[in-house]
Amino acid sequence: MAEKNDTPWVTLSPLGGLGQIGLNCMLLETADSAVLIDCGLMFPDEVHLGVDVVIPRFDFLLEKKHKLKAVVLTHGHEDHIGALPWLLKEMPEVPLYSSPFTLALVRNKLREHDLADTVTLCPMEPRQSAELGDFRFHFFPVCHSIIKGYGLGIETPVGRFVHTGDFKIDRNPLGEHATDLEAFGDFAAGGVTLLMSDSTNVERDGYALTEREIRDSLDDIFTQADGRILVTLFSSHVQRIQEIFELAHRYGRKVAVSGRSLNVNIETARELGYLEFADEDFVSLEDLAHLPDDKVVLLVTGSQGEPMSALTRLAEGDHRQLRVHKGDLVVMSSRFIPGNTKAITKVINKLYKLGAEVLNEKVQAIHASGHAHKEELRTMLETVHPKFFIPVHGEYRHLHKHIELARECGVAPERCFLLENGQPVTLFKGEVRLEDPIGVESVLVDGKGVGDVGRTILKERRLLGDEGMVVALLVIEEATGEIILGPQVQSKGFVFERHFSHVLDDAKEVMLDVYANMPKGASQKMENRIKSALRRHFRKVLDRDPVIVPLVITV
Amino acid sequence: MAEKNDTPWVTLSPLGGLGQIGLNCMLLETADSAVLIDCGLMFPDEVHLGVDVVIPRFDFLLEKKHKLKAVVLTHGHEDHIGALPWLLKEMPEVPLYSSPFTLALVRNKLREHDLADTVTLCPMEPRQSAELGDFRFHFFPVCHSIIKGYGLGIETPVGRFVHTGDFKIDRNPLGEHATDLEAFGDFAAGGVTLLMSDSTNVERDGYALTEREIRDSLDDIFTQADGRILVTLFSSHVQRIQEIFELAHRYGRKVAVSGRSLNVNIETARELGYLEFADEDFVSLEDLAHLPDDKVVLLVTGSQGEPMSALTRLAEGDHRQLRVHKGDLVVMSSRFIPGNTKAITKVINKLYKLGAEVLNEKVQAIHASGHAHKEELRTMLETVHPKFFIPVHGEYRHLHKHIELARECGVAPERCFLLENGQPVTLFKGEVRLEDPIGVESVLVDGKGVGDVGRTILKERRLLGDEGMVVALLVIEEATGEIILGPQVQSKGFVFERHFSHVLDDAKEVMLDVYANMPKGASQKMENRIKSALRRHFRKVLDRDPVIVPLVITV
Repeated sequence: MAEKNDTPWVTLSPLGGLGQIGLNCMLLETADSAVLIDCGLMFPDEVHLGVDVVIPRFDFLLEKKHKLKAVVLTHGHEDHIGALPWLLKEMPEVPLYSSPFTLALVRNKLREHDLADTVTLCPMEPRQSAELGDFRFHFFPVCHSIIKGYGLGIETPVGRFVHTGDFKIDRNPLGEHATDLEAFGDFAAGGVTLLMSDSTNVERDGYALTEREIRDSLDDIFTQADGRILVTLFSSHVQRIQEIFELAHRYGRKVAVSGRSLNVNIETARELGYLEFADEDFVSLEDLAHLPDDKVVLLVTGSQGEPMSALTRLAEGDHRQLRVHKGDLVVMSSRFIPGNTKAITKVINKLYKLGAEVLNEKVQAIHASGHAHKEELRTMLETVHPKFFIPVHGEYRHLHKHIELARECGVAPERCFLLENGQPVTLFKGEVRLEDPIGVESVLVDGKGVGDVGRTILKERRLLGDEGMVVALLVIEEATGEIILGPQVQSKGFVFERHFSHVLDDAKEVMLDVYANMPKGASQKMENRIKSALRRHFRKVLDRDPVIVPLVITV
Repeated sequence: MAEKNDTPWVTLSPLGGLGQIGLNCMLLETADSAVLIDCGLMFPDEVHLGVDVVIPRFDFLLEKKHKLKAVVLTHGHEDHIGALPWLLKEMPEVPLYSSPFTLALVRNKLREHDLADTVTLCPMEPRQSAELGDFRFHFFPVCHSIIKGYGLGIETPVGRFVHTGDFKIDRNPLGEHATDLEAFGDFAAGGVTLLMSDSTNVERDGYALTEREIRDSLDDIFTQADGRILVTLFSSHVQRIQEIFELAHRYGRKVAVSGRSLNVNIETARELGYLEFADEDFVSLEDLAHLPDDKVVLLVTGSQGEPMSALTRLAEGDHRQLRVHKGDLVVMSSRFIPGNTKAITKVINKLYKLGAEVLNEKVQAIHASGHAHKEELRTMLETVHPKFFIPVHGEYRHLHKHIELARECGVAPERCFLLENGQPVTLFKGEVRLEDPIGVESVLVDGKGVGDVGRTILKERRLLGDEGMVVALLVIEEATGEIILGPQVQSKGFVFERHFSHVLDDAKEVMLDVYANMPKGASQKMENRIKSALRRHFRKVLDRDPVIVPLVITV
């Protein structure tokens, strides 16, 4: 990093989120202090290889532990707070700064990891600020698909930075759910050295749908519905949940909830006063059964077709208390996250089969992205009017296109930096230097194992999953060199043994051939030969390549 | 099926394509004859389980082999012709009817399976008809994302049927690529008993983009481009390929092609006269290098981010003859097929990193669906005006919504049938009867194995791929009951042994514990105990559940 001398400097080290969607994590650092912005996780690209979540590599952070003053969290989505448990296991003393709601979500998460009591949570109100080492962080409300998110104004030794977090600009906001552009503008009036801004939706022209438009669509749906209404949505989207409660109340319906994450989030938000409804409007699943269909709203988890979610269980007819029936209207007020499309459409097809009608964002305006579209990004660039620009939160093409936009907005080309994870940059007063890349290859979490599953293991799993495996056993008497047991062949995930046992019988013959053509006593060598011979054999007869475990045992 | 008596009847047996996208295959049958419409494949839902393709179960067809007069193919896409090799291996004598172009694609495919010489191909011209047993099939041109597709008018003993195949209605077609609504109308003038119509896009309102609109967008792109233009598209979309050649010619560019399937299809289409360009407009990849960038169009395979395709190799910097460089414009004139989105966006990001600009259908109107949108489906329903209606080619919700549309168009509700695969229906004169379901669970092809990979094997593969496996070996001397070799533990895809060997060392201790607590000589029982003990152990320490193969050998 930069030298420790009299010239002030700030180094930014992107540990995640730049060049990818998810895993947001960036370190700000001076000679004496450091602050981490966000600590998110990512879900694995390839399902079916057993990886639960992906987290940033913290080695680099651990080296800076002595000067880390805080983790500042922009908002409560998993890709911004999800990796905290693994970080805090290493450094429980570092305090967390964010809105009370975000910190409440963090507390729920830490509780699951038995960390809740050891960590200091520092709630910040809108426009409040905190001095963290050499930095002063200002918290500016932003509108996003979760409530109580913040963009950050940061006073640093080399000038003012703005980090937008995830945001959009709702031009006609409902209630208080607005981006505080005035606060961004006031902060920027002092001159902003660097803007880091959310790039997710730079490819989408114009403006995101507003929450008001969504609510109006939902209102139309409630007006027309004459059976039960089942709503699924992201369980942290408290604003949308509030709208559903209000619509239910307006149309004389009671709300029941099925699904753990929704129940937890509703309880948390209500306790903090961010979700308001009368007790009598909220009923249990049991009480629901006694109400007429047109007096019912059911909020359920499962907007992504998750296997154990309430909606999937309903679609499969596996829900403990409820059955979908003709006349039910299912409203999917959420996005189809790519990769989940097949799971989601499977659920939709099943719901139709049970007689329900299903509405989703593909056929009706019942969900809005939480990320600024191009014109909103332009507004942010024009409000902040930065000298330097680093796009964040996006894949390479998003970052690239966001830089094109920044240049349109008057940021000089040589002052726009397309950084990817692991590429630190140091800002001096009026000057910028790229540092040597740092190792940030992300870490895979599988069960309780953190980092023990790497590329090699994944490659083996891919092979096992694609081709299955064969264990080939031969026991040889050392003294005589004779076979005393075997050849035995066991397979898993290879061929259906009951009907295709001849494939394995032939494999035994192949093993005997190898044995017959080998000098006595070379069991290691024989294992290798058996492996090659079986590979050739299976390729030839089946055009397949299972993982082969040869065991030649000499006793 | 229906009884063989004096009342004429026709049984329709959907073997694939109803309740799913892909695998289109339907049998039409009378007492004495049968005709199969289409014989398609499907790509597996779950990648990484080693299944190459999914084909229909032919058991039911094989029983009817003696009366099968023909396979009629609507068009040349894989989901309509792809399973032919497996069918024709069982019944090479059945003749195939379709357009010369479709049959040329079939011939290419059969050649790869060494079947080309044994099969009879019967080319049919537009509006031509053929008597096939008790049926007369009329071939009506339809517009689709492949040239020379047909919808079918079928005279049957119980009245006229129409099967649309895959189609859309281009209201302002380019050249001859139009749906021959007049032919459908004329055929329908005699009164149509049953319409079977493509349901894929029933959820999309209005009309599909027309090819003319696409060509105009492409023309704009060619006008503005000042570097190389790389175009990727579906390799069977000959009409689009023709447009690219024409645009290249108009703008003084030469066309080169990279990718096997494009080369084969271009050659086939050109031989048959369906693709026309001057020899001098077509250059080799080698000659391309000598041309200025603004004189070049490169047609490449890889619109779905396929790993070995030309575009992916270009994006990875792995292409043998070519490099992507700054100023290149990549035009993805194709659809993002769900499930491929991640692979495609990975390629796009890499292309940007190499300095290219990338256009795709998400950001520009450069691809149109080949399937009729709602209003086009309405036109077909109104043109054919059928008595009975069976939606085909769609998932359950598509079929459901298509029936809603048919009812809007005046088909009586009780005359609309939502059939899924395996649900045959018999039409008598003016009457319909649902038959007993038949077994149509589709067949998985993995390498040369057809049907040997079933549910059990896939389940094992999923486990192996998710969790890896552990082989646990112990050799015991029969006479003494003492361990003479082991415990040995080998793992694949489980933990990275070099750094986590203690996990496997602990496993050996677990095995020794089991051994110590067992009476001598019960090796089968000991294998079960070891398996359970290791499962408990790994669950506890790692929260994982690998496939365990215990081997207790007594010698």
